[in-house]
Parts: sequence; C-alpha cells; structure tokens
Amino acid sequence: MIIIGEKINSTLKAVRPAIENYDAAFIQDLARRQYEAGANYIDVNAGMFHEDEPERLEWLVKTVQEVIDAPFSIDSPNAKAIEKALKVNKNGKPIINSITDEKERYESILPLILEYNTSVIALCMDDSGMPETVEDRLKIAERIIGKLSDKGIKHEDIYIDPMVRPIGTGSHYGVVAIETIRSVKAKYPGVHIACGLSNISFGLPGRKVINQAFLIAAMTAGMDGAILDPLDKKLMTYLYATEALLGNDEFCMNYLSKFREGLLEI
Amino acid sequence: MIIIGEKINSTLKAVRPAIENYDAAFIQDLARRQYEAGANYIDVNAGMFHEDEPERLEWLVKTVQEVIDAPFSIDSPNAKAIEKALKVNKNGKPIINSITDEKERYESILPLILEYNTSVIALCMDDSGMPETVEDRLKIAERIIGKLSDKGIKHEDIYIDPMVRPIGTGSHYGVVAIETIRSVKAKYPGVHIACGLSNISFGLPGRKVINQAFLIAAMTAGMDGAILDPLDKKLMTYLYATEALLGNDEFCMNYLSKFREGLLEI
Repeated sequence: MIIIGEKINSTLKAVRPAIENYDAAFIQDLARRQYEAGANYIDVNAGMFHEDEPERLEWLVKTVQEVIDAPFSIDSPNAKAIEKALKVNKNGKPIINSITDEKERYESILPLILEYNTSVIALCMDDSGMPETVEDRLKIAERIIGKLSDKGIKHEDIYIDPMVRPIGTGSHYGVVAIETIRSVKAKYPGVHIACGLSNISFGLPGRKVINQAFLIAAMTAGMDGAILDPLDKKLMTYLYATEALLGNDEFCMNYLSKFREGLLEI
Repeated sequence: MIIIGEKINSTLKAVRPAIENYDAAFIQDLARRQYEAGANYIDVNAGMFHEDEPERLEWLVKTVQEVIDAPFSIDSPNAKAIEKALKVNKNGKPIINSITDEKERYESILPLILEYNTSVIALCMDDSGMPETVEDRLKIAERIIGKLSDKGIKHEDIYIDPMVRPIGTGSHYGVVAIETIRSVKAKYPGVHIACGLSNISFGLPGRKVINQAFLIAAMTAGMDGAILDPLDKKLMTYLYATEALLGNDEFCMNYLSKFREGLLEI
C-alpha cells in the first residue's frame, strides 16, 4: 500500500493556525511523525488560504523538506500554487493531487506533470460533474488514462481516485466506489488506485468504523494507495492486517514486526 | 447477511461443561442471547462427546427449542447424530453443517437433507483432501452444487464454505478464500456462501482484528453468511457497517437503528 499522509491540510482545524502563523516546528513535527508512522508521501494543502495559497504551499514544501525527504503529494487544483511548490521541491518525485477531466483544470495542470516529471492523482470527474454510475466513472478514468499515456506518462505514475461519496446520501455509493476500483484495476493493472477514506462516512455515527471497513473493502477490490491519517494506530492496524490477508505481506512478516514494535492496536 | 451463531459448541472451553452436565439454563441463555443479538440460525455442536454425540446433540436441540424458535445449524459430520437432532427438531428448516464431497460423508448425509428437507453447508473438500488452489475449490463446489441440484435441492438451500486456512501457515490462503468466494458467487448467484471467520487468524497475534478484516473482505467478495459470535459487539458493528457500505442496508436504516439502540461499539 502506498500511504499518503493527509495531516498537513489547511482544512483541518488543528492544523490551519500553524499554516496561518508559519509555525514551522508544528508542521515539521507533523511531517516527521507521519513519515515515521509509514507515510510514503506527505500531502501538503494550503487551499483554505485563497489569496496566498501559492506562497503558503511553497512554504509548506520548504518547511517539510528541511526535516524529511519523503516525496510530496501537492494538494491543490490551482496550477499556480502547484508550480510554486514544484519549483522549490527538493525531495523525490512528487504526486500532483489532483487533476480531473475538466477541460480548464486538465489543461492547466498537464504541463506541470510533464515539465516536472511528476506522478498524478486523477479524479473521476469532468465538466459534466461527478458521474453517478460505475460505467461513467470508468469512462472518465479510461479517457484520462488514455490522454496521459499519449503524453508519455507511465501507468505507474497515474493514481485514479474513484471519487467517494457518502453512503449516508446514497446507499449505492459504497458499491459504486468499490466497483469502480475493481473495474479500473481489472482494465489497467499497472495504474494505481488511491482515494481518501473519510468521505464515505460523512453524516453518520461511528465514522471511524465505517472508514476502516471501507479501507478493507477497497483494498480487497484492488485499491493500492490511500490518503489517510497514518497516526491513526487503529486504522494502520487494519491496513497491516489486510495486507497480510491479501497476500501482500509474505509470512505476515510486516504484520508481526509491527506487533512486536507495539504499533498495532489490537 | 445470514448469521449462524456459533457459541453452543462443545469445542469451546466455556461451553463444554454445560453440555457435559446437561445444564439447560446455561445453554438456553446462550441460545437466547445469540438470537436477540441477531443470529438467524443457532449452531449446535456436541462433537467433543464422541461416544454419545447423538444423544447430546438431540438434547441440545430439545433444550434450545424450548426457549427460542430460530432454526438450527446442526453441526456434525456424523449422520447418526444429525438424524437424532433432526427427528426432534420443531423449529424452522434447519441447516446441516456440513456435507463434503468425500464419498462416505456425502452418501450418509444426502438422504437426511432429502428426507428432512433441510438446507446444507457444503465444504470445498473431497477424498483427496483440502484443495490448495481456487480452481480446485471451485471444481469441488461445482461438483457438489451439481449433484445436490440433480436431487432437487434448490440453490438457495446450499451454502458453500470455501474452507478457510490460516494466513499464518500460508500467505496466499486469504486470497484463496476470497477468490473462491468471488468465483462461486459469480457462477452461482443464488447459492449462499458461509464460512467461519476465526481459522484465518490461527497462530497470529491480534486475531480479532484479522477476523474482522476477513469478515469485511469476504463480504466484499460476496459472502452472504457467516458462522460467528453474534455476542461480539465489535464484530457485529463491522458487520452492520459493511452491510451499509455494500448497499445492503437502504438509507443505512439498520446501521442507524443499531446505533440508537446502543448496539454498536464505535
């Protein structure tokens, strides 16, 4: 599993003031802890600062890379902000989070993927909005994967996000997400699937339980990446258990070593 | 989900003495609590009493049906014991747990299914033992389903158990179970899939977590029945959450009502 640590995000109440006040120590601590907890990428988001998102995002990248060398997930729909972050990035190959098949967004972000040789998360949506069915999502995924491939971007650099909607607003949305994952992975085994977990449970009680169940169900369907909180020990316990269950952890070695290190919440 | 409550089982240390001592109050309480917690079937097993398994099993059925009217899962490989239980059964249509494609077991149990018009759990194994691969398991499932269908037994009365082996003894056994479930369900949508959960985690730490993850993964793959402990509140919470996730709980009504009744452990 490719884990994208989601904590450095301006939409989080506990984190926003640190970005507002340029509190480097807070941000660096959050980055370091996510990295040590197993994050392969560190997501950075300054989207709540509409006016100076580019400067804030640039600052986040500079601040984090002073202390860890994990690659970034640069989380913005805004090409200007993304580019400012990419220009100062000194860590490994980043992921741009995210492109869509909306004409304007696609055309503004594509040149950055090519110029800076990044990976990219592509959301299954286009100018007609968020599709309702698995078929419509798959169509958009096919279109985006086709277009990106034509530009020389490798499948392994593409992460499809099925666009998870809350089951509280439509009982079918869980199945739509799970079946989109399964369909995309069946057609493009080399493409990654990554999505956030928490949207699925919006508006319901016991959100953590639903998010955990969704992680397991989505991994079973073929999801191999997730934007999540690696500091959530219980969630990570389910992730390791599911890796073992799905045969991605030979002799359960990783699960057992996490257990021995006291990193499982069982 | 069809829930088969597993607690009245002579292999359980806490339960065996109650069967040994004909402690009706203990057994009735266990039956009642499982039923109230959502068990659709009450499994009864007296297999540890080799000599007088038939009498003990008969006593279990008589004892339980004094207090609840849930149908039984009659848990024995022994036709004589099964028949004794079936003869006294006054509750609904029972499940025989279980048949296999081993010649002797198959031929001794088949007449009971037909005479007493029962459902049946069929394990994916035959006289050559427990098959290693998904393909071999599917072949046995096909053979058993074909033979039972030829005798007029409906698909809806057949429960296939994929035979879960511990991931601690082979990293691929989780995938084998999950893919067997998916394959059988794809080929026979009307046949049920039911299996026990706990074997998957044998020998590993954090067994509950692995069992919960397996429940969710197996349900995602199409399992619609399980032999489990309905008194395990956390496990049941994951079961309800996964039902909601998989679109089997319209408007999440059941999940929400369990929450309101305080039945979720979140």
